[in-house]
Amino acid sequence: MRTRPLKVALLGCGVVGTEVARIMTTHADDLAARIGAPVELAGVAVRRPSKVREGIDPSLITSDATALVKRGDIDVVVEVIGGIEPARTLITTAFEHGAGVVSANKALLAEDGSALHAAAEKYGRDLYYEAAVAGAIPLVRPLRESLAGDKVNRVLGIVNGTTNFILDKMDTSGAGYSEALDEATALGYAEADPTADVEGFDAAAKAAILAGIAFHTRVKIGEVHREGITEVTAADIASARRMGCTVKLLAICERAADGRSVTARVHPAMIPLSHPLASVREAYNAVFVEAEAAGQLMFYGPGAGGSPTASAVLGDLVAVCRNIVGATTGPGESAYTRLPVSPMGDVVTRYHISLDVADKPGVLAQVATVFAEQDVSIDTVRQQSRNSGSGDEVGIEQSGGGRRVGGSGEASLVVVTHRAPDAALSGTVEALRKLDTVRGVASIMRVEGE
Amino acid sequence: MRTRPLKVALLGCGVVGTEVARIMTTHADDLAARIGAPVELAGVAVRRPSKVREGIDPSLITSDATALVKRGDIDVVVEVIGGIEPARTLITTAFEHGAGVVSANKALLAEDGSALHAAAEKYGRDLYYEAAVAGAIPLVRPLRESLAGDKVNRVLGIVNGTTNFILDKMDTSGAGYSEALDEATALGYAEADPTADVEGFDAAAKAAILAGIAFHTRVKIGEVHREGITEVTAADIASARRMGCTVKLLAICERAADGRSVTARVHPAMIPLSHPLASVREAYNAVFVEAEAAGQLMFYGPGAGGSPTASAVLGDLVAVCRNIVGATTGPGESAYTRLPVSPMGDVVTRYHISLDVADKPGVLAQVATVFAEQDVSIDTVRQQSRNSGSGDEVGIEQSGGGRRVGGSGEASLVVVTHRAPDAALSGTVEALRKLDTVRGVASIMRVEGE
Repeated sequence: MRTRPLKVALLGCGVVGTEVARIMTTHADDLAARIGAPVELAGVAVRRPSKVREGIDPSLITSDATALVKRGDIDVVVEVIGGIEPARTLITTAFEHGAGVVSANKALLAEDGSALHAAAEKYGRDLYYEAAVAGAIPLVRPLRESLAGDKVNRVLGIVNGTTNFILDKMDTSGAGYSEALDEATALGYAEADPTADVEGFDAAAKAAILAGIAFHTRVKIGEVHREGITEVTAADIASARRMGCTVKLLAICERAADGRSVTARVHPAMIPLSHPLASVREAYNAVFVEAEAAGQLMFYGPGAGGSPTASAVLGDLVAVCRNIVGATTGPGESAYTRLPVSPMGDVVTRYHISLDVADKPGVLAQVATVFAEQDVSIDTVRQQSRNSGSGDEVGIEQSGGGRRVGGSGEASLVVVTHRAPDAALSGTVEALRKLDTVRGVASIMRVEGE
Repeated sequence: MRTRPLKVALLGCGVVGTEVARIMTTHADDLAARIGAPVELAGVAVRRPSKVREGIDPSLITSDATALVKRGDIDVVVEVIGGIEPARTLITTAFEHGAGVVSANKALLAEDGSALHAAAEKYGRDLYYEAAVAGAIPLVRPLRESLAGDKVNRVLGIVNGTTNFILDKMDTSGAGYSEALDEATALGYAEADPTADVEGFDAAAKAAILAGIAFHTRVKIGEVHREGITEVTAADIASARRMGCTVKLLAICERAADGRSVTARVHPAMIPLSHPLASVREAYNAVFVEAEAAGQLMFYGPGAGGSPTASAVLGDLVAVCRNIVGATTGPGESAYTRLPVSPMGDVVTRYHISLDVADKPGVLAQVATVFAEQDVSIDTVRQQSRNSGSGDEVGIEQSGGGRRVGGSGEASLVVVTHRAPDAALSGTVEALRKLDTVRGVASIMRVEGE
């Protein structure tokens, strides 16, 4: 074993950083044995250096992150600050000064991963970021390495714990969105400003990273179609239940059927209760990976939190340190396919549409005609009078276009389609809104995982 | 990119080998891009060279595997023959002649992994074997690398598809063991001689490999406690159902509570229906990994079959080839903890015991006394007259020792214990067999995953 210790600079000492520092101290012998060299915390950059941090030698604390990464004796920089700047400049500076980098920064990787990879390659250093996607769950490494001899066609997963907690709460208790969000906030699952989570930005960043790795191409967060969960209602969840489904915020990355493009999207979707993702509860994450030879794989675990994220960071730290000891680097960016990212309109999936309609003869005929004109094939229609609690599901073949909907007044019509392009569905909805008999489109939700 | 191709020798061309060769040809461009060098199938050693093999250049076929691995121009040897010899000698010869090795050979790795690792290290070559455990499911790499900064305390999984298919069939159809085995054989899930699967040898080999990697020690297959599923009856499964459980063949690797030893075992066990492993159907595999910082992770997917196994082999092939291009090697054996493997008697878990007893007063008192004398605490007792279909579950506190069991003749008594050492349970069963009122011990099954 080499005796000169590898020196690690830690940027950020919040929930994750504290745990990284703690484990580096308490498990120093194990880490040394696994790396083949001792590893030493050589500096910790924080915003508030005066704060007492238990278990961390105060002499290591600095507020000058730039000076720390420029020191020249640092072997690995662990970046757990988050956000675009100063993280980006610090990481680039670290490479320039000879350090490898372990980052948990999904926003930065999704925004500018290619530039960071290019900088790492230029200076012959490692850039590892398992912790950026789904916390402790190994996903980046399995996709980059275990499936390196396979062809991934689809990644489908729950990659945001906050929104899964909220949707799970709505599903199990019948609560509305606001009530469930309040509970998530009270229990510490949602931040004071939950925007990044509930609007799907966090999941979109992860989708961009996963799509890039899975398809060996480049996907930026701006190319990920994004819808959050703030519009999901208790009625949507109840409607999903009637279909034997539940609602999850899914990140979906797909290779097009012709193999010439990819799509990446984040939106709430109904999935059948029999699908393994349906039983992912609370703040857990789970990701399905479908590969040509491997078939369907699932990875499940805690997607966030100090300890799980620290576990992923430390796994990467051991890998980068091993590479340094072995005078090598791990796999860099693999973006050779250069597949374009198609717009949402090209995505093909199924839809569940709730319409408020006039409760009079001929409505279903009008609605069915609109779907037919847009070439969107209907699977089932469920009609329901406003004053009746139970739905009546009919195959469209049996019901025909002329079937009468309810008696008089208002009714609701739930249409579930066969697979159709998103653009066709949008055209359908636009045309439906123009019908006199359609009072409103109550909700549109995609149906996945079937 | 380097232009001289890396040369691969394939040992064995059965279901897995054929698929490896096929993907190497059809996905040659992708593999080259990911490796940074073209990769070429340079020879295929088979037992019956005269057999026509579609898609494989006949000039590559040879029956002389030894000559192939000794050729000197081979960069990587892919061993998918299985069994101890000649695989072991061929792998060692490959290292001696400068090749890295990818193997899917669980029996050999579990029997002699340390010697192979030592040979790999001596000659500075790689030994990768993701395909040896749970087919396409990434497990070896996540344990060796993703969790390299964490401390794994437990691995609990379904790692044999044949037995899972049989038990699932028994559970869903009420079939007996023989009937379910026949169906598995007819559908190709069980081999003509199913011994390796149904007696737990295959799962024990995987448990040995997983335990070694997870705990950074050496565990040989002979140190794995092994019980197969041939004794599992329809009555056991029905009894499990009454407890809200199902029966699975589990591989369980645990670090002792004091951290000073490990255990590895394979046996059928009851697990609650709410446990994610309970819903692993047919021939699928799934493995739970519990680590100190990461928490509970699960990996799920197809555990066998030509394509999934080939996916794992090719992932390793890409890794070994990348290492060769980068003039390095991946992580070798990590067995620095040298933790001893404790015997089964030291394992602490819960038990479900079915006794055939005389249906007369005082039986429960006698039975409860035996448990108490062996220091095995009883959780619940369910008593059932032979002519009554329904059980009557009572907490032992309420039932007392003197409660009368049934009326006259024979009855059955089902005891579920609290956690106790396996040795204490064995002592209890031995003492129970000596009681006049105990006609027989119908079944003993461990209860896991609670």
